[in-house]
Amino acid sequence: MIIIMNRDVTEQQIETVLAKIRDHGLDANISRGTERTVIGAIGDERKLAPEMFDSLPGVEYSMHIVKQYKIVSRESHPADTVIDIRGIPLGGKQIQIIAGPCSVETQEQMDASAQFVSEAGCRLMRGGAFKPRTSPYAFQGKGVEGLDMFGRAARKYDLPIVTELMDVRMLDTFLERGVDVIQIGTRNMQNFDLLKEVGKIDTPVILKRGMSATVSEWLMSAEYIAAGGNHNIIFCERGIRTFETAYRNVLDVTAIPVLKRETHLPVIVDPSHAGGKAWMVPALSRAAIAAGADGLLVEMHPKPCEAWCDADQALNPQELKNLMGVLRQIALALGRDL
Amino acid sequence: MIIIMNRDVTEQQIETVLAKIRDHGLDANISRGTERTVIGAIGDERKLAPEMFDSLPGVEYSMHIVKQYKIVSRESHPADTVIDIRGIPLGGKQIQIIAGPCSVETQEQMDASAQFVSEAGCRLMRGGAFKPRTSPYAFQGKGVEGLDMFGRAARKYDLPIVTELMDVRMLDTFLERGVDVIQIGTRNMQNFDLLKEVGKIDTPVILKRGMSATVSEWLMSAEYIAAGGNHNIIFCERGIRTFETAYRNVLDVTAIPVLKRETHLPVIVDPSHAGGKAWMVPALSRAAIAAGADGLLVEMHPKPCEAWCDADQALNPQELKNLMGVLRQIALALGRDL
Amino acid sequence: MIIIMNRDVTEQQIETVLAKIRDHGLDANISRGTERTVIGAIGDERKLAPEMFDSLPGVEYSMHIVKQYKIVSRESHPADTVIDIRGIPLGGKQIQIIAGPCSVETQEQMDASAQFVSEAGCRLMRGGAFKPRTSPYAFQGKGVEGLDMFGRAARKYDLPIVTELMDVRMLDTFLERGVDVIQIGTRNMQNFDLLKEVGKIDTPVILKRGMSATVSEWLMSAEYIAAGGNHNIIFCERGIRTFETAYRNVLDVTAIPVLKRETHLPVIVDPSHAGGKAWMVPALSRAAIAAGADGLLVEMHPKPCEAWCDADQALNPQELKNLMGVLRQIALALGRDL
Amino acid sequence: MIIIMNRDVTEQQIETVLAKIRDHGLDANISRGTERTVIGAIGDERKLAPEMFDSLPGVEYSMHIVKQYKIVSRESHPADTVIDIRGIPLGGKQIQIIAGPCSVETQEQMDASAQFVSEAGCRLMRGGAFKPRTSPYAFQGKGVEGLDMFGRAARKYDLPIVTELMDVRMLDTFLERGVDVIQIGTRNMQNFDLLKEVGKIDTPVILKRGMSATVSEWLMSAEYIAAGGNHNIIFCERGIRTFETAYRNVLDVTAIPVLKRETHLPVIVDPSHAGGKAWMVPALSRAAIAAGADGLLVEMHPKPCEAWCDADQALNPQELKNLMGVLRQIALALGRDL
Repeated sequence: MIIIMNRDVTEQQIETVLAKIRDHGLDANISRGTERTVIGAIGDERKLAPEMFDSLPGVEYSMHIVKQYKIVSRESHPADTVIDIRGIPLGGKQIQIIAGPCSVETQEQMDASAQFVSEAGCRLMRGGAFKPRTSPYAFQGKGVEGLDMFGRAARKYDLPIVTELMDVRMLDTFLERGVDVIQIGTRNMQNFDLLKEVGKIDTPVILKRGMSATVSEWLMSAEYIAAGGNHNIIFCERGIRTFETAYRNVLDVTAIPVLKRETHLPVIVDPSHAGGKAWMVPALSRAAIAAGADGLLVEMHPKPCEAWCDADQALNPQELKNLMGVLRQIALALGRDL
Repeated sequence: MIIIMNRDVTEQQIETVLAKIRDHGLDANISRGTERTVIGAIGDERKLAPEMFDSLPGVEYSMHIVKQYKIVSRESHPADTVIDIRGIPLGGKQIQIIAGPCSVETQEQMDASAQFVSEAGCRLMRGGAFKPRTSPYAFQGKGVEGLDMFGRAARKYDLPIVTELMDVRMLDTFLERGVDVIQIGTRNMQNFDLLKEVGKIDTPVILKRGMSATVSEWLMSAEYIAAGGNHNIIFCERGIRTFETAYRNVLDVTAIPVLKRETHLPVIVDPSHAGGKAWMVPALSRAAIAAGADGLLVEMHPKPCEAWCDADQALNPQELKNLMGVLRQIALALGRDL
Repeated sequence: MIIIMNRDVTEQQIETVLAKIRDHGLDANISRGTERTVIGAIGDERKLAPEMFDSLPGVEYSMHIVKQYKIVSRESHPADTVIDIRGIPLGGKQIQIIAGPCSVETQEQMDASAQFVSEAGCRLMRGGAFKPRTSPYAFQGKGVEGLDMFGRAARKYDLPIVTELMDVRMLDTFLERGVDVIQIGTRNMQNFDLLKEVGKIDTPVILKRGMSATVSEWLMSAEYIAAGGNHNIIFCERGIRTFETAYRNVLDVTAIPVLKRETHLPVIVDPSHAGGKAWMVPALSRAAIAAGADGLLVEMHPKPCEAWCDADQALNPQELKNLMGVLRQIALALGRDL
Repeated sequence: MIIIMNRDVTEQQIETVLAKIRDHGLDANISRGTERTVIGAIGDERKLAPEMFDSLPGVEYSMHIVKQYKIVSRESHPADTVIDIRGIPLGGKQIQIIAGPCSVETQEQMDASAQFVSEAGCRLMRGGAFKPRTSPYAFQGKGVEGLDMFGRAARKYDLPIVTELMDVRMLDTFLERGVDVIQIGTRNMQNFDLLKEVGKIDTPVILKRGMSATVSEWLMSAEYIAAGGNHNIIFCERGIRTFETAYRNVLDVTAIPVLKRETHLPVIVDPSHAGGKAWMVPALSRAAIAAGADGLLVEMHPKPCEAWCDADQALNPQELKNLMGVLRQIALALGRDL
């Protein structure tokens, strides 16, 4: 923690700051410059917060110098974490493409989807049974019945399933139904009670980035899960909100190398929700893999035009197959598999 | 719903769009321009969604022409709604300033706070027992014990209490403890399961705007509550996230007149979280009232420097009293009371 | 300047940083914490830049601790600067409302405008002869002819004129035509050659904030003008670009108290371009004055529906008159005149 | 142009809108829906603007349905444009990496840079003689002397040169000095007088995207150049401004496929300014090429730690060479050369 004092600070004001630092068991260093006096707190600064000092007289501002996340940081765990999802590794040399429809609709649709996902060479499947929709009048998902349809379809092709959890009261049902990876959606990235609950189990969790969450807040949300004991966390970049209106969100590829530097955990990308249009998905997918992502979460529907939800962003089976081919070439160029 | 077709659209593609519109029981109007053909769907367009058409061949894009919110819209209810909070009107001529500490700390702190709030002339009190914190290692609130402390302190001065609900499982406890106004925080504006639950009761709900929620999404979140039957909804603007780093958030005063035009429900402002510094609160409070807000949610702490949370943004009792004086003058200039 | 070193920094790396600091004539202070070593540069840190250190091995990041603007800072000049515009004071107790049409169209329109501006009680007039338009096919302004029309109309009512300069090659013409206040538009806030030119004269300059300029960048742009010798600078907040699409820009009222704290120069607001709709202008104007602005730049047109440019954001003469009445009440509530 | 009327519109109000449309020589189509009446203007809608209608009584809002850019649109010119830069093609199958230092410093530095750029396999060179700097106290570039140093160094290796023009008064000097490609910087994307001037010559122009410019505004700025007669325009995405503070800008890779669809002109990317750190450059470069960019503008400095400007974002010669190797692999995966 560094505390920058006002130009005309008094000795009394400096003493008050020093006393507050020492009260918390830390030491202090004072640097008197020509324009500002700077006080540095020496010791475990996680015990301190800028707001403790910013309200004291004579303080201009204060700031942490060490990141506030710990378990998820690469500093605490230098090697890459590879998460095992029923035998499928995520976060290692092999890139994983998780494909499937936006939402579970019918058993037939899920059976067909599972077949196409498997045929395209993907090793995991996605599908939503509970859907967060902006409008209360829109289709809200098939619910528990949808989970069952999804499970039946995926089992035939031995595909682990990935699906979104929105409500803490549904967690037990998810576990009973054998959900392999729990997805925490964008709108729930800072639903702290939900994060605490999935922190108590050991099922892998995909943590999507909030619409306007900073990388630092996102890492802190992961730390909520990790602090509970569940270290099987996968970050998923899905586009951020900006001023641009020509596409739904701006896929933040810079977050990929930055996260890979800051955390040891896997990083994947959702190119479908980012752009919001199927024709943008191949370009965004290639960019994500080229930037170093460990995998993708891609929407594919057997018949996109008939999808009940996000029809305009799903690839059709052939498009998914073609995409897999190009991504494999890029993976090889980077010394990885797919 | 308007559907804009590509320049080189075929008759066959136009027919497919028309068929889809008629399948949903609406009629269509075709306008063939020199550069584009535009199809208009005639009937209740809430049955349609742009994504149904955007994936069809020949479609350039499509869009709703009517707003998707209904119960909360002023179109459906032209007169201002005044919400009654244990006899205190919110949304009418009288402006309400809801003051109190960021978080409940001790009984003494709450007793002193209630006294100062009442003495300053405020008629409602705020205080957090459950705190959404970015870091899992930060103080998470006093919980149910805090609710009790808050209730005891406020009762002495007959102040209705406003406090944040984060977890659906806590709703019954809130109701048993007699919480007068339930606050849904910024991070939960699109926690749809929580919105549905508070939609089933009739306790007034303050719905804070999400960090980067559009006015339209915010109105749709209110519609979730209203669709459940609870029409006692109060919008609270609290600053949005932008590129600016000199202050925590940018208070969006434009949202005030826009909301007053779009909805019949009351609109209040939280100037404390917006700026993030106590010295900004008076200017932001004056701006909010001058722009037409029906009230404020302001942080006040008996001893700001000792606050356990957000110490740098709370007013002290004297500052609150002074602020009330100026706001009263501005209210009068606008033909309102305070 | 503070330089934060990596956790596993070597003595050699620290020495390299110290050497670089000393090379520039400054001293250094070293604070060795439990997790990080922090080096502080002591002396005139404006000689240093973070990029000098960030590329050195062992450096995590570095940052200035003192603001980079000097002449425009309140630290260098504690008292408010009041700018004299042909006898009209801007920046003092009296608030100035600068009104007029978006663009100069005809002599009749300008004559009528000047009359209405004067009758409403405004003391300065605005009008654009050179218009920055997003499209090359849109009306680009009447040019020099427009300047002349504007001058003739304003002279009759003794109103100093405010108009936008876009091209350095036009500066002499502006001075010859007796422009009283030169406006630098949003798109030119960082047109540094233009800033340097208006820094060489002493005509007052209104510096509009860039669409997504931080307060700090804005102050630095003013410093460009001030560094050339022209200290007659007026900041004009006009809304910033965000994710919100319900209105053109988000008026950033927080910038008002922040600027008043950081600089001694006057701060005004343009409520017309901010919201983009005439019906939003009264609310935004009231908010701006209540937040502490020293004036406004408001669009008024004798017949808004017939305006050649931005027709939907201009007030009509009666609306301007009404607005002046309410603003006067708010000014009084704040202990100011209008 | 589509004009949406209010729910309670009168026949008189509809007539006024129709008259305005016909006044401009267009026809109209009226669609009376259950909730709204929609009027469509039929003919060349570029003669109309939403603001003409939005201020009329009874109008809710209006909007263009056709894009406002014409010459630069792919609709007007379906095939990709390949720009010839002294024999080097940009925009075709071959990808071009334009490398060089941020700013021209000395003849020795430029000579060494040119040699390394050429050895790495790049075919064009970049370097700034005039630098747009946020602070007036920072190094502003070597000016005309710098142009000469740059020319001498590049000529030895037969590298066409790319350099930034900030001031219209310098254009003749640039042409006399034989600048091969003129760069219009981020801060000047809407400096319309500058755009008009470079529209009058035929030297290729790199048009960088403004810090918070929408894709549509960017295309309109290109249209300014094209409307003057110069169709040799190259778009350069360089990161946009968002709420994220962990990196300087967010590289908007989605803009690449969107631009390639909207315009026939080449699109390149500047990965150095986007991230702001050299260690991010390889990942961002790979993402850009994988997403379909036609080239890159990359900073390389013989000795990054000693650079006078942006030292922390330049690659060293070996890093550039390595990057070229990987990019070549990705280009091949996409069926392109490098």
